[in-house]
Amino acid sequence: MSSEQKTVGVLGGLGPEATLDFFAKVLQKTPAKADQEHLHLLINNNPKVPNRNEAVAGLGPSPGPILAEMAKALKQAGADFLVMVCNAAHAFQAEIEAAVDIPFVSIISETRDATLRQLPGVKTVGVLASSGCLNTGLYQNAFAKKGISTIIPTGRARDEFMELLYRIKAGDKGTELRLSMRALAMQLIQQGAEAIIAGCTEVPLVLFDEDLPCPLINSTDVLVESTIAYAQGRRKIESEP
Amino acid sequence: MSSEQKTVGVLGGLGPEATLDFFAKVLQKTPAKADQEHLHLLINNNPKVPNRNEAVAGLGPSPGPILAEMAKALKQAGADFLVMVCNAAHAFQAEIEAAVDIPFVSIISETRDATLRQLPGVKTVGVLASSGCLNTGLYQNAFAKKGISTIIPTGRARDEFMELLYRIKAGDKGTELRLSMRALAMQLIQQGAEAIIAGCTEVPLVLFDEDLPCPLINSTDVLVESTIAYAQGRRKIESEP
Repeated sequence: MSSEQKTVGVLGGLGPEATLDFFAKVLQKTPAKADQEHLHLLINNNPKVPNRNEAVAGLGPSPGPILAEMAKALKQAGADFLVMVCNAAHAFQAEIEAAVDIPFVSIISETRDATLRQLPGVKTVGVLASSGCLNTGLYQNAFAKKGISTIIPTGRARDEFMELLYRIKAGDKGTELRLSMRALAMQLIQQGAEAIIAGCTEVPLVLFDEDLPCPLINSTDVLVESTIAYAQGRRKIESEP
Repeated sequence: MSSEQKTVGVLGGLGPEATLDFFAKVLQKTPAKADQEHLHLLINNNPKVPNRNEAVAGLGPSPGPILAEMAKALKQAGADFLVMVCNAAHAFQAEIEAAVDIPFVSIISETRDATLRQLPGVKTVGVLASSGCLNTGLYQNAFAKKGISTIIPTGRARDEFMELLYRIKAGDKGTELRLSMRALAMQLIQQGAEAIIAGCTEVPLVLFDEDLPCPLINSTDVLVESTIAYAQGRRKIESEP
């Protein structure tokens, strides 16, 4: 039972609501009749990590060193592998990986791979993500490696996404905000996206599969499913990004 | 900001659903307009801890050593003080405290003290708690120190509580289960309880204030409120149990 399962280290708090969503979904998706059948999760919910998007824009300190410290603490506490519940912070993945000798499972490559499994033959996807995630090309590069094009919000739409993101982080999940997020997704679909990637862990708090006329690939859901599969040993962690 | 706040170490996973409930309530009750205003929580969600109630009954291994290891890991990862989201496991509090030199905030004494603040002059409270918690007298002794009597489920009612508890842990939060939990509370009220203590972190998942004709003191809510107050430095941690 316990001996076969891996302990999961979770870099979280970026933001906390997204980490709570991840935790809730891990519990929902783990078949368990008793406490002992659930996964051992070590959650480092550290909302004090410097803002990822401002760091990428050169407007604030790098979160890299503190993410590396969090990773080390999780490893010392017994984590067998790491996940991070924030897409944009994956811009600092190299610093995390340099700090520890346990595998780091990337939400970016897991989401890309889940998209390929779910939609074989897809040519163009739309990516709803924060400025830090888009400016560092995390999703664009990951999909390009598999010959898939990406359409992303530009100009006013990108600013609007960031405004919505900070409102979600401040607790707003109301109907008007949900409709605004849906409108941003619809713009990408009108530009040719065959599917929408919710490439920011705050997006699934306000945008749902039934809101769109095309598939929505939810990066949090993908990370949940991968985390459970790796922890239970049903899937092997590969190192290729 | 961050420097003034304490980092909270959470002994959790006992069960995971109660830990999720605690995490959700900490986020709800922390006024925050941005990620960085939330608390730094280190959550050791370890559902592999041996069953507390079986251990107290002499039917299984003690969870004490593993709880002590979890506490050490949380301290090493940077926790300034510890809380544990499980009432019955407080039977092993001494082992936890012996393992680390950071304060441990007891859900039992916090709940007792919150009851005294909310209901000055209360003479008799009813305690809904698991067999391990009741058999070790955690609440009975804590209230007796302040001259307050406790009424607890006995005989068939105590067995029924345990059946409900394991059904909640297996995911059942349905109406029939809620009515059964309410009936157990009503028995204590009919025997003279002026208030009900939800002295098990699974109880607040199915029993709510509006269900009862008298006050319900929810141990999870109390621990959430105390955790935030101690982390923000608005209240000082005292060592007296």
